[in-house]
Amino acid sequence: MREAIRLSIENVESGNGGPFGAVVVKDGKIIARGTNQVTSTNDPTAHAEVVAIRKACEVLGSFQLDGCEIYTSCEPCPMCLGAIYWARPDKIYYANTKTDAAEIDFDDQFIYEELDRPISERKLFTEQMLRDEALIAFKKWAESSDKIEY
Amino acid sequence: MREAIRLSIENVESGNGGPFGAVVVKDGKIIARGTNQVTSTNDPTAHAEVVAIRKACEVLGSFQLDGCEIYTSCEPCPMCLGAIYWARPDKIYYANTKTDAAEIDFDDQFIYEELDRPISERKLFTEQMLRDEALIAFKKWAESSDKIEY
Repeated sequence: MREAIRLSIENVESGNGGPFGAVVVKDGKIIARGTNQVTSTNDPTAHAEVVAIRKACEVLGSFQLDGCEIYTSCEPCPMCLGAIYWARPDKIYYANTKTDAAEIDFDDQFIYEELDRPISERKLFTEQMLRDEALIAFKKWAESSDKIEY
Repeated sequence: MREAIRLSIENVESGNGGPFGAVVVKDGKIIARGTNQVTSTNDPTAHAEVVAIRKACEVLGSFQLDGCEIYTSCEPCPMCLGAIYWARPDKIYYANTKTDAAEIDFDDQFIYEELDRPISERKLFTEQMLRDEALIAFKKWAESSDKIEY
């Protein structure tokens, strides 16, 4: 965790992005590091956890983080928590809370609240269309015999 | 939306990943396309929406999708919905529902439920540590005068 925190401080000092750092650990060793790079790489998905997960998967040659732990300097936002669940590590450790993040104007709470609202009540306009046509892909997937599930 | 659906079907046929496609539209034109590439690129974050958002931001040279619409062949999972909120497009359109996705074993619902649980009750072990040390980065961010906020 101290390395994740060190990365978060360094990221503010370098001006590369927000005050967030994360590392992925396997068998007691750090296999990947990530910092927030949203503004420096023009990538809204480049949060510290997502960057660290992508690098760790590259290192392991796998789309799953079996037997790994993620140390992140701040409680993950919904995007990062979703990414962590898809990557399936064994454990998560975090330091700062989402309340701490909100106090410096990173308002994850707004996204958490939006996810809990019915689609019709969300502030971001969201509408369904063409479901019947889209279901064709799902049927093809269900019938496919050589798919790689995850 | 028909292009997002076409990509989702093509992705099953090519074996590149799950049955999901997405496009980002600006001023009536498609500026980026994405398909699910989790298994083919060993990247658990490479869902169709995340791939399309990253490409669209590259095209626009921006970390925000102002004035854009996202068309996705399936209702976004929590990770993708989080990514969409951070990218801040104007509108989202989707076709298949998360219930349709669960029926072919993509269980976004589990992640939605986990996000709603208090941390101590989640199935993924999650623990806080070293908050006092991590807060240093947040203080430095708050005091920084040349930061780029987002």
